[in-house]
Amino acid sequence: MEYCFGVDIGGTSIKMGLFSRKDGLLEKWEIPTRKESDPTPLLQDIYQEIEKTLNEKGMGKEDIGVGLTAPGPVTEDGLLRGTVNIGWGDVFLGKEAEKIFGISSVFVENDARVAALGEFTFGAGEGVNSLLMLTLGTGVGGGVVLNGQILTGKTGTAGEIGHTTINPFETMFCNCGKKGCLEQYASATGMVRVAEKFMKNTDKPSTLRSLDMITAKDLWDRAKEGDELALDITKYVSRLLGMAIANACYIVDPEMIVIGGGVSRAGEFLLNMVQKEYAQNIFAHCRDKKFALAKLRNDAGIYGAAAMVFEKKQTGNNHN
Amino acid sequence: MEYCFGVDIGGTSIKMGLFSRKDGLLEKWEIPTRKESDPTPLLQDIYQEIEKTLNEKGMGKEDIGVGLTAPGPVTEDGLLRGTVNIGWGDVFLGKEAEKIFGISSVFVENDARVAALGEFTFGAGEGVNSLLMLTLGTGVGGGVVLNGQILTGKTGTAGEIGHTTINPFETMFCNCGKKGCLEQYASATGMVRVAEKFMKNTDKPSTLRSLDMITAKDLWDRAKEGDELALDITKYVSRLLGMAIANACYIVDPEMIVIGGGVSRAGEFLLNMVQKEYAQNIFAHCRDKKFALAKLRNDAGIYGAAAMVFEKKQTGNNHN
Repeated sequence: MEYCFGVDIGGTSIKMGLFSRKDGLLEKWEIPTRKESDPTPLLQDIYQEIEKTLNEKGMGKEDIGVGLTAPGPVTEDGLLRGTVNIGWGDVFLGKEAEKIFGISSVFVENDARVAALGEFTFGAGEGVNSLLMLTLGTGVGGGVVLNGQILTGKTGTAGEIGHTTINPFETMFCNCGKKGCLEQYASATGMVRVAEKFMKNTDKPSTLRSLDMITAKDLWDRAKEGDELALDITKYVSRLLGMAIANACYIVDPEMIVIGGGVSRAGEFLLNMVQKEYAQNIFAHCRDKKFALAKLRNDAGIYGAAAMVFEKKQTGNNHN
Repeated sequence: MEYCFGVDIGGTSIKMGLFSRKDGLLEKWEIPTRKESDPTPLLQDIYQEIEKTLNEKGMGKEDIGVGLTAPGPVTEDGLLRGTVNIGWGDVFLGKEAEKIFGISSVFVENDARVAALGEFTFGAGEGVNSLLMLTLGTGVGGGVVLNGQILTGKTGTAGEIGHTTINPFETMFCNCGKKGCLEQYASATGMVRVAEKFMKNTDKPSTLRSLDMITAKDLWDRAKEGDELALDITKYVSRLLGMAIANACYIVDPEMIVIGGGVSRAGEFLLNMVQKEYAQNIFAHCRDKKFALAKLRNDAGIYGAAAMVFEKKQTGNNHN
């Protein structure tokens, strides 16, 4: 199979890319996400785009595969569990898509894990054999790639570093229903929550106090400018992130850590702070692990979805 | 290869087993551990036993492989890092052993990881495809088996759940040099430390108070008898264990959790308490994970070492 579509289903829009095994991304575009209680209309929207593109290129269905990201947990058997953002219940999305598309090579995986595979294959992870990726955005997503394969896990929970407990004494609930998850401190909203707490608990002057509303970007920008309170806050957040990454390394010990998502635009400054805290929480002989910023930004999903098709097709390991 | 030796190098004794692929363990015995700054004399002791056994059985070196457990971290490349208990520096133990034994199929892995493979292949894990094993003893060891293979990790740190941070606010140091490791609460000595703290911080009457010296066994025995303070302590310990296990499941999501080591003799009572706490710290759709007690006790090491030889020989993947 020389061509495929990488399709990244998000809460607002669906990103689509046409890839060739030889030349990579050929073209990309977006369509809006249709939110209904059943995935059929959305899959039909995707199929319209596929059909139109195949006609334009003079390609047939037998020439292509489709990789789909799913905005929720996907089990080893391919079952997508309740998708809160879009409104679906449990569904075998791959099987549904194969029926609607009339294409037999459809692969489905969780979006954060697919992004990790995208970075592994086409982005920051080139040249390594395994990685853990964290996506710091509205939530904290994650994905593990070992020996070039996405680690899914028995129930589809592998890579969910955002919900590892990093503070067993937290009193506030995470969106997931438990307390003390990394996401409560290291997502964009979590960082703002931490900042508000710090600002209340100290009189330290700070340029942050003149802002009507603080964003995660403000925190990192002010910390870079040397604002002491912003530095305290970003150091606290980095410490918990470094610990959670070290905890994950004590379980899978990958060759590289990749940090992506909107918050990662704080760049090397953030990466260095997190890496320093990681190093203080890991065995001495594992301290020099590679840390890198994600490279593919919003395209990690379509790249990873394409990698899924091209690589699974080779091994014949179709977990849809 | 139809026969192999499984050799478990401990701080006090070396356990040895002769295995056949067809009939499993044929015989087992122990020799004392020679502690010198270099592994050569100890490997010579092991070789004497191998040679004697081969002569007795009329077998040749070409008929067998040897699996060795190493009491320290072993990297992907087979490097055993500083072995504190025995006194060696960094050494490629497999290569040294091949030279001394004159045998080309020698496989080396960390002892806790080998025990996990032993349980996977011959013990509690029969019938599952992946597991995480915890060994609750003087320390807290661990090992991950995925698709029938030990997960070693780039720097040999995979499976070390005992050193994941479960309390970022701990002020006491772990033996590893950092603070807040699971081992500080869930090893036999850690549990006693927690008990002493609980006894100091409350006036609650308890049968524990009449003991001159408390052991982890006392704690679980008294908790089973309904002693309230002992129940508080074991519940606290179980909560941190359950959280750490959930954290590991958010990274690798194995099919089964196996708990072994001396403390696990507290049996189903301990297993149920830990599983309950696990369930409160994981996504709803992952709550019904299989939990089991280890079955092979002190023989997990030799069984795992044998499994390493029989399985790696098949794939030709010799990481010594």
